[in-house]
Amino acid sequence: MQRYKCIVAYDGTQFSGYQIQPNGRTVQGEIEKTLGKMHKKDCVQITGSGRTDAGVHAVGQVIHFDSELNIPEERWVKAINGQLPEDIAIQSVERAEEDFHARFSAKGKEYRYKVSLSKRKNPLIRNYVYHYPYPLDMEAVQEASRFLIGTHDFTSFCSAKTEVEDKVRTISAINVLETDQDEYTFQFIGNGFLYNMVRILVGTLLDSGAGKLNPKEFPKILKSKNRDMAGKTAPAKGLYLWKVMYDN
Amino acid sequence: MQRYKCIVAYDGTQFSGYQIQPNGRTVQGEIEKTLGKMHKKDCVQITGSGRTDAGVHAVGQVIHFDSELNIPEERWVKAINGQLPEDIAIQSVERAEEDFHARFSAKGKEYRYKVSLSKRKNPLIRNYVYHYPYPLDMEAVQEASRFLIGTHDFTSFCSAKTEVEDKVRTISAINVLETDQDEYTFQFIGNGFLYNMVRILVGTLLDSGAGKLNPKEFPKILKSKNRDMAGKTAPAKGLYLWKVMYDN
Repeated sequence: MQRYKCIVAYDGTQFSGYQIQPNGRTVQGEIEKTLGKMHKKDCVQITGSGRTDAGVHAVGQVIHFDSELNIPEERWVKAINGQLPEDIAIQSVERAEEDFHARFSAKGKEYRYKVSLSKRKNPLIRNYVYHYPYPLDMEAVQEASRFLIGTHDFTSFCSAKTEVEDKVRTISAINVLETDQDEYTFQFIGNGFLYNMVRILVGTLLDSGAGKLNPKEFPKILKSKNRDMAGKTAPAKGLYLWKVMYDN
Repeated sequence: MQRYKCIVAYDGTQFSGYQIQPNGRTVQGEIEKTLGKMHKKDCVQITGSGRTDAGVHAVGQVIHFDSELNIPEERWVKAINGQLPEDIAIQSVERAEEDFHARFSAKGKEYRYKVSLSKRKNPLIRNYVYHYPYPLDMEAVQEASRFLIGTHDFTSFCSAKTEVEDKVRTISAINVLETDQDEYTFQFIGNGFLYNMVRILVGTLLDSGAGKLNPKEFPKILKSKNRDMAGKTAPAKGLYLWKVMYDN
């Protein structure tokens, strides 16, 4: 048996999310079915670095799986992609140590979130960018984001449904860049992110840019440990799991 | 009755094309149905600057229609977009002279075509960019494109099914720019384009960049007036009707 580490990109639009479920089309389900066919089994179990919700995209999701098939590394990508649906594509496959684990070995993650401030609706990016056609004070957004960097209890910035107990996470970087005409990309790098955390961070940062919330309130929101103090959860379609970081 | 000029953007992926047809979802059909509802009629006829095929996108398609509704210019956009499906969006509506005609008044058009040379499949752009993962000699592409600029009979570069008799058109500009990582955009500006012309031009220019066709062959291809001398028709999904030009 050989363990493989695999980088996967997908368009989340037509998935009920990453994680397999009895009803609904999932990324995990499609990949397991495809690997199953290649191995002439019902399915081959895969483990992802974490879930993504319905509508959330990935450029660099990481999964691992074990296989006894004797396929050279460079052939795996074509072999799997040839059978996957068009909205998932394996980016790379490499042999890993047998104790490599896509989730537990992860040291950090990068997420990106795209927002369009254009006054006009653009149907070509409707599933890939959050359309927020309002004036935005980028200096207020930058000021607010500086309060979020560092190690904090992010209870206020995760879904009330979050089940993990320890809500302390470290955000090492938040950058906001103009990446296209009227389009801004928010970049978040950290050691881990709670359920809906990036989307709630974006929703709250947009409130500060729109003048609805003073950036100086951010330390209080963190301290309150109360989800209701933060802003709305920004829509799934603007969110991308960009990269998962490991030692090596 | 007031004539209106209207700029329309659409994602061509889920349309059988621009032009209305008995079966199949079309851009014209959806807009006429929406305007019909607003006017409490079965449909309100619209006229476009020209057709686009299934899968072809538009950033700046232009249409005209006549209406007796008394709606201020700036309200039209929201009123129509509120009822259109998500893959079409009106960009602007303005009052036009009664002899304005979206097709016959047009002085020129700009098309763009996007090609990705990345080795990796990117599911996020699968419907919006032609994936051509081969080395491309951009100087050969530039050299070949210079032979196409000017006034020529483009019989060799249009579908053999083209019905118009006069196949002389003027191309005023062809530019190829790197617009993203491994992504090139071809820009074509001319006084008019024949059926499939831009897609065949792109297919043939890619042949020259791939070393399958010497750029110096282009004048001979034009002279032959034979569709079989040119390259393949590049896929619809990379093509965008970018702009339609009118006087003033």
